Parts: sequence; structure tokens; C-alpha cells
Amino acid sequence: MCPVHNINHPCTQKNGLVQLVADRNKSFIFRLKPGEIFQSHHGVIHHEALIDIPWGSQVKTHLGKVFIILQPALDDLLRAIPRTTQIIYPKDIGYIIVTMGIGPGSNVIEAGTGSGALTIALAYVIGDTGKLISYDKEEKNILTAKKNLVSFGLENYVTLKNQDIANGFDETNFQAVFLDLPNPEDYCSQIRKALIPGGYFGCILPTANQVSALITSLKRYNFSFIEVSELLHRYYKTTATRFRPEDKMVSHTGYLVFARKTTKHGEKIESS
Amino acid sequence: MCPVHNINHPCTQKNGLVQLVADRNKSFIFRLKPGEIFQSHHGVIHHEALIDIPWGSQVKTHLGKVFIILQPALDDLLRAIPRTTQIIYPKDIGYIIVTMGIGPGSNVIEAGTGSGALTIALAYVIGDTGKLISYDKEEKNILTAKKNLVSFGLENYVTLKNQDIANGFDETNFQAVFLDLPNPEDYCSQIRKALIPGGYFGCILPTANQVSALITSLKRYNFSFIEVSELLHRYYKTTATRFRPEDKMVSHTGYLVFARKTTKHGEKIESS
Amino acid sequence: MCPVHNINHPCTQKNGLVQLVADRNKSFIFRLKPGEIFQSHHGVIHHEALIDIPWGSQVKTHLGKVFIILQPALDDLLRAIPRTTQIIYPKDIGYIIVTMGIGPGSNVIEAGTGSGALTIALAYVIGDTGKLISYDKEEKNILTAKKNLVSFGLENYVTLKNQDIANGFDETNFQAVFLDLPNPEDYCSQIRKALIPGGYFGCILPTANQVSALITSLKRYNFSFIEVSELLHRYYKTTATRFRPEDKMVSHTGYLVFARKTTKHGEKIESS
Amino acid sequence: MCPVHNINHPCTQKNGLVQLVADRNKSFIFRLKPGEIFQSHHGVIHHEALIDIPWGSQVKTHLGKVFIILQPALDDLLRAIPRTTQIIYPKDIGYIIVTMGIGPGSNVIEAGTGSGALTIALAYVIGDTGKLISYDKEEKNILTAKKNLVSFGLENYVTLKNQDIANGFDETNFQAVFLDLPNPEDYCSQIRKALIPGGYFGCILPTANQVSALITSLKRYNFSFIEVSELLHRYYKTTATRFRPEDKMVSHTGYLVFARKTTKHGEKIESS
Repeated sequence: MCPVHNINHPCTQKNGLVQLVADRNKSFIFRLKPGEIFQSHHGVIHHEALIDIPWGSQVKTHLGKVFIILQPALDDLLRAIPRTTQIIYPKDIGYIIVTMGIGPGSNVIEAGTGSGALTIALAYVIGDTGKLISYDKEEKNILTAKKNLVSFGLENYVTLKNQDIANGFDETNFQAVFLDLPNPEDYCSQIRKALIPGGYFGCILPTANQVSALITSLKRYNFSFIEVSELLHRYYKTTATRFRPEDKMVSHTGYLVFARKTTKHGEKIESS
Repeated sequence: MCPVHNINHPCTQKNGLVQLVADRNKSFIFRLKPGEIFQSHHGVIHHEALIDIPWGSQVKTHLGKVFIILQPALDDLLRAIPRTTQIIYPKDIGYIIVTMGIGPGSNVIEAGTGSGALTIALAYVIGDTGKLISYDKEEKNILTAKKNLVSFGLENYVTLKNQDIANGFDETNFQAVFLDLPNPEDYCSQIRKALIPGGYFGCILPTANQVSALITSLKRYNFSFIEVSELLHRYYKTTATRFRPEDKMVSHTGYLVFARKTTKHGEKIESS
Repeated sequence: MCPVHNINHPCTQKNGLVQLVADRNKSFIFRLKPGEIFQSHHGVIHHEALIDIPWGSQVKTHLGKVFIILQPALDDLLRAIPRTTQIIYPKDIGYIIVTMGIGPGSNVIEAGTGSGALTIALAYVIGDTGKLISYDKEEKNILTAKKNLVSFGLENYVTLKNQDIANGFDETNFQAVFLDLPNPEDYCSQIRKALIPGGYFGCILPTANQVSALITSLKRYNFSFIEVSELLHRYYKTTATRFRPEDKMVSHTGYLVFARKTTKHGEKIESS
Repeated sequence: MCPVHNINHPCTQKNGLVQLVADRNKSFIFRLKPGEIFQSHHGVIHHEALIDIPWGSQVKTHLGKVFIILQPALDDLLRAIPRTTQIIYPKDIGYIIVTMGIGPGSNVIEAGTGSGALTIALAYVIGDTGKLISYDKEEKNILTAKKNLVSFGLENYVTLKNQDIANGFDETNFQAVFLDLPNPEDYCSQIRKALIPGGYFGCILPTANQVSALITSLKRYNFSFIEVSELLHRYYKTTATRFRPEDKMVSHTGYLVFARKTTKHGEKIESS
């Protein structure tokens, strides 16, 4: 609550994330730093003019273009990530979080990091009481993800590791492992070692052939409760008197595969 | 970490939630209490036998039926809620959370509470650093939700209010308001008063007619970034050599409507 | 036009197909034969009472149950076929017909016949100026299909062959070959021999693995314009003030695969 | 069968429709006329060079571009229609044909004609033993449809009428009436007069609001067996080792509404 405004109007803060919005598809997310300048082809605004003003205010560039200043939500962050690699969609991220039981305080391993979209979402949901480790064998992905995490102020919530998971994970007894890699079927042994008994494995895969290979491997490595599904997201036009779906939609983002590490009856709980 | 077991095998704890699983569609979620007895038509187990044992262990009833003891995830809780009213599905809950930017520390208002499925999910994700207020004008819904929250140990994360939101919300400057009511179009004024500028409104509605009415009202009350969509969730059979969708699927759970409270150019920020 | 009624009221005819309908899901299709009796648990009606009456009339059983007498459409016939094997759905049949250019006068080969649902649809659309040959290696399927064709009066439009297509088709230069068999990839050579250059091949397959195998084979055998798709059919409730999709839907009937027989550049047109 | 070629190689014919294909999305459909020249930016070919050659042959333009010469199927015709107005998709046309029982010899009324896509499909399926009447109040639509019908040689199968159906249809006792108009709810009385008892009404509508209005009107005018549905068509990539849906798809073409003209119990069959 800023001291210079009515207590009922929460305000933007120095070093806080803000979103300048003209419309949903044209928005800018950045951190407020005294002395810096927001620049776009719509004109410039000094950050000082954006600090300690009520959320939802309208602000103008020197060219007179009006923006609304908003607090960005996770969905906004995800849409703002520079898309250097294939991105995970909000619809899939939401379902992953709910299905794998990820919340404040969870400990989760992710690989590969990619551009860090899922990393950002997981960090956001886990908060500062949990643990998030993200592996990627490509150094450039680690650097990109780092940059994206820093720009959203989430870098302290994640440990990035530039390692190949073929050599195993450093962690054990984690609640959840999520892979966004082309060949998850090759890492079932490593995943088992990293997971707590009953822990969740999740994965997103573009092709049916990959899912078949993964199912075979998950069964061989004694995973249970295997679930494969996909989410189709259909947007509607928002004209009240002509309510109908949009003309085009994304047809496919990926098959979502989930499973839990269990042990067979009579089998000793394996030492990890 | 329990003292009587290897440090690498986290254990169940007194008063903790556990899930006894035979298969995904047959599972039991309850809280471990010394002196109590788990009873099912598969036989009984004393809770003492389930405390301080490694997660993922196999346990037997007196009739010899084997269960695995697992830590329940949010998705498991949601599936275990007694369905007295229409339930919100995990796919929708996940997308609601991501789109409305709900995470640890968020403050959120919900109405109506219903059987508390979304309440449980929101409480789980917000954690103990946020605020969750849930309104329902039906006392029996409040009581049902209370019971469900208690059984999952989440009752301290939620303030349940047996009030009609037609009279307005008690709160102001909340980040997000989610309605699961048949006539959300009647409450746009109340929602605006409860939301921070830029705050998120969300809603799930079964029929196209309701969505049309809501769109009209949202526009009249100066909400922006209106988005309407639906998620189709398609499960696949998990046979690697015969990979194909399941024969039947849920065709419709609801239209998801989101919007943000904004102000028109030149308009004074309304006092709330 | 029956002589005993107004010329504007076309009537049922002796030996014609009729449909007695209480509601869409409860209807009876049969051929009117003097001397026969329609029997159901709703009561009986003598066929004589149903001949030479206007289409759309209401008729009563001896128990007073009212039926409407209608002319059955193809869709009605398809819904009335006894389902001894997996049936092809109307949505798929319609798309098959349009995509493969099947109309009055077309010549088409089908295998396997199965219960004859697609056979009936093809016979209906091709009419008496075309040719339809249907192969099945199981004699019982041929007998079932025969019975279904006879009951709809379409038996003269089809030549049923109790042969294994592994031994090849007897026909050449046909416009279209449609397979409803588990292993279409094994018959690409036979299909090429039966098709006119440029002719259409079509197929419906339940699993992704089968489609992959078929695509590989089609490419090896120099088929072009390969198209794979699926149709999701979503029904809506018909309440004007509460317009919304049905709760459940059929998630999957099959992947539809189409291709055309072509020759590579410079290659001699193969003699068939 | 052309005299100058082997009987096993059916050939193209003077005045027949041909399709020159490079790939599915780049094809040309036209009628072979001695003396005319096919022209494209890929070069030219004299029609004479295309007459009496085997279907499936490869032909070259003067620039060396290779095309395959094929017999166009209905689907190809539909894809080749100049899109002056919103087009009906093959998936919808197929389902309309099957649901409304349209085949060789059917008599069908259509309004509005639009660019004639559905007209062409219906003419193709009904053949020369049936009757097809198509109404449009816009003269320019009638002229466009005429041109499209002529180019496919189907003009003799259709009677085009430049009339407003608000004034009623000229026909009675037709089996089927299909409307592709924005306000079908205004014509239920006219439709009843044109239909045989038990006859089929069909319609395609883009918005939910229109469907609601139509359902209300159909019930008021005593139509039965009302069915509303939509078809989602999802294409797959045709790489055998990476089988997956295409990235984008058409999300919505229209809601399909079907009903049958019936009479209530005890009601006199209305004179038409």
C-alpha cells in the first residue's frame, strides 16, 4: 500500500513488475527502475512516472498513446516470453499443475528447461517455500531461461542445471518430475531414482509414436496410473448477439502423459 | 522425515492426509488419526498401521486386499469430493488458476461455494500467505464445503460466508473474483467494487445464452480483455501398440469467461 | 401417388420401406407386405392398415400406442442396422462419399463387408447405374450383410464376394476402393491393380499405429495426395433458452485415410 | 473407353471435366474443348494434347511443369469453387446428404443458393432422376452459381429461381428442404407447405443465437426429431514416424440443425 495514495488504491512499486496494455495481444511487461525509460514505437514513458500510481491507471507516452498499467498474471508472463523454442500453453500448464499436485512448498524437477515457460509457471506456483530444479543440456537454453526468470523476478525460486539427465538427477525423493524432451522413454530409470514412492511423472509429447514408446517404457519400469490425454482449447467471439466459436484454433499442442512411481506387490521398496 | 526409517524414505505422518489406492478409480483419501480404523468392503486397517511407514508402501486389509499408500495430489482430492452439486473439472481449474494469476499469496473471492471443489483447489494453490473468501447463500452448501475442507485439512485457508452476493462483497481491492453461479450478469457492479483496478474476473457457465447475457453486462460495466473459451479433454487408451482415443468423452463442462476491470480513458478511477 | 388419396398427399406403397417412429431412438424399419403383421411390445398392427396411407400419418397399435409412419432416410437405415460388428458412423460415411467422389453411376469396391453399414450407404448413393462390389473373407459377415441389404431392398445394387482380398480383386479400373480392415497396409499392391489411374483409395482405422503403417505402405506403393483426418461429432441439447452441448460425446470412431493412385514422373503407366 | 487405347486404360474425353494436379492445394479443373488452351503461370497446354489420354497420365506445360491429369471427385469440385460467399465444407455436405436421405432420384429444395457449393454437391448426388430447386433472392448469387454449375456440367440438374422464399416455395411434397440463410426461423410456415409429411428440414447456422431462435420456431411449427450438432474436422500430418495432428484447424463452420415435419396426435393432416 503506497503512502501517498488512498489506502483503497493499491499502487505500483519501485522494482515491481508491471504490464502496460493497449490490448491483450499488444502488451509490455517489465520491472520499474528509477532512471529507466520504457520505449516502444508508440512513444516513451519515464519509469518514474509509473511508480507509486494506482494499478489500473491510464498513462500516456510522449506521442499520446494511452496504456493501462496492470499487475501481470502468470498467463500474461507466459504470453510475454520470447519464443525461442516451442512453448507450453497455459491450458497445458494449468492441467499439469493440478494433476501433479504442485502447489506452494512442492519440490519439483523439470527437464529440459527450454525457454523457461514451464519453469516460470512452476516457480510462480511453488513459491519460496518449495524447491524447483530445472535441467537442460544446452547451455544456450539455460541462459535464455535465466534471462526470462530474471526479468520476471523469479530467478531465486529455481536452480538451473546445465546437465544431461542421461547421467541421472542429483536429487532423490522429489514429489514430481516433468520432462519436456523428445525421448522421455530413455530416462525412466533416472526418473524412478529421483522420485519419492508414489511420486508423479509428467510429460508433454507432440507425436503419437513418442507416446507409444513412452507407454512401453513406463510399464517396463513399473509406473502405474498411466494417463494420456490432450486438451483442445476453443476460443469464442465475444459478441453477445452473435455468439460463436472463432474461425480457427490451435489443433494440437501435445499429448500429456502422467504416471506415478509404484512398486509391485511383494517387491521391496527400492533403495534410491 | 520419520526417525524410524532411512532418511531417503519419507514417511506418512500422524494427522497427515493419505490416499489408499487400488486403482485410480478406486481410492480412499483420509487423515491418519491414532485410534481410528479405515473401513471398506475390502476389509479394515487400523490407522496406527499406516503411520510412519514409507510413502508408496503396500498395505493389507484384514481380508488380504492390497492397497498402495500415496500422498494425494490436488487432482486426487478433487476426484474424491462427494459430488452433491455440479463439480468443476481439473482441466478447468488449472486454466482458471493460470489465467487469473492465482498463486501463493493471492487474495481471491469465490461465489458460490457449492460443494467446495474450486474452493479446495484455490486454497491449495494460494497457501497460507494469501486470502480466500468464499460466498454461498445456501447454508447447506457452506456446511458441505466446510466438511470437505476439514477432511483435507484446508479449513484454515478459507473464510466461508453464508451471504447473498446481491448485497455486495465485504472486501475491496481483491485481485480476483470467480463466480460459479447461474446469473453472473447480475453482479457486475458488486464485482467491480470488490476488485482492484486491473483485477481479474472469471466465471464458468453451462449455456451459450448465459454467456451472451454476461458479455453484454461485462461490456456495460466497462470490463476489458473479455475472453470466452472452452476446454475439451480427450483421454487416450494406454496400450502402446494400439494407441487411440477412448471411445467416449465428456463433451462439455462449461464455457469459461474471463475479463479485467479497467477504466475508460479520461474517466476518474472510481472510488470503491 | 396413390389413387385413393389427394394427389398432394403421397402415400405408402405395398412392398415399400417404412419407418414407424415413436421417437428417434425408438423406431422400426420394415417392408410393407400384405398379410404380415408388425409386432412390438407396444402392440401389433396389420401391414394392410399401413399401405396406401399418407406419409406422416399417425397409426395406432391394438394397445393404443401411437406411431408416425415415415419414409426412412439413409441415416435412419444406418441407425437401424443390427450392430454385429463395429459400425461406420453417418458423419464418416458422408465424408467418405464426398471425398471419394461417389455418386450415381460410380463403380466402387469395398472390403470387408462387415455388417454392411457402409455397403448400404454406398448402394444407396450409387443407385442402379453404378457398380458396387463388396468383399469379406468371413462367410457369416456376407450372410449378415445380405440379410440387411435385403431388408432394405438394396440387394440388387451390390455384388457380395466371400473372398480374401489377399488374393487380389477380380476387378480393374474401378474409381474407388474403400477398406475397413485392420491391416490395409498389406493390400496396397492389390488396390493399385483394381484402381483406375487417379482412382481413390479410402480407409478407416481405429489406432494411430495402424495409420502409421498404412502411410508407410501407401508411400512405398506410390500413392499420392495422402490425407489423414478425423471427424468429431458434437451434439447439442435442443432447449432454445439453455443452448449447450450434450454432456457426453463419442470421442473417436476412426482415423480416415484417403489417397489417390498416381505414377511417378517418367514412369510408364503400369499395365493393370 | 477410348478406341485408341487399351480397354484397360480408360481415357479422358472431349467435353469431359479434368483436373490438372501438381499438389492438392494447386489444381485446375476445367472442361476439355478442342481448340482451347490451358493457361497458368506454369505454362500452357493445348486441350487437344489432353483428350483421349489415359487418366493418371503425366502431362507437361511448354515450360516443362509436370501435372497429373485426374478425374475430379465431388470434393475436388467443391475445393475449386470460387469463394465469393461463405462456403459449405465437404464434412458438412456429407453429413447433410446422409442425414436428410438424399440420393439418386431425391427431390430437394435449397435456399439460398449462394455461390452454389451445396447446389453442386446436391446435383452431383441426386443425379438426373431427381429434382433440385435452388432459390436465392440475390440475382448476382444466381448468376455466380449458374456459372459454377455450367463449368462442372451440372446445370441441367438444377432449377435456379431468383425469388425470395418469404413469398413461399412453388413446390409441394418435396422430401427435403435445406436452408443456408441467416434467419431460417422466419420461414417455418413456408417450409411446412413445401415438405411431404415426414420430410426433412436442414440448416447450417454460424451463431448460437440463431440456433436458439430456430429451435423456438421449429417447435412452434410442430417439427419433430430436432437435432443440433457440429462437426470438428481435424487433419493429421502424414509422416509415419511422427504421426500427429496438424498445428492449426478450422474451429467452426456452423451448427447443423435437422428436423422432420410431423403432425400432432389427433391433428388433421394439414392440406398443403
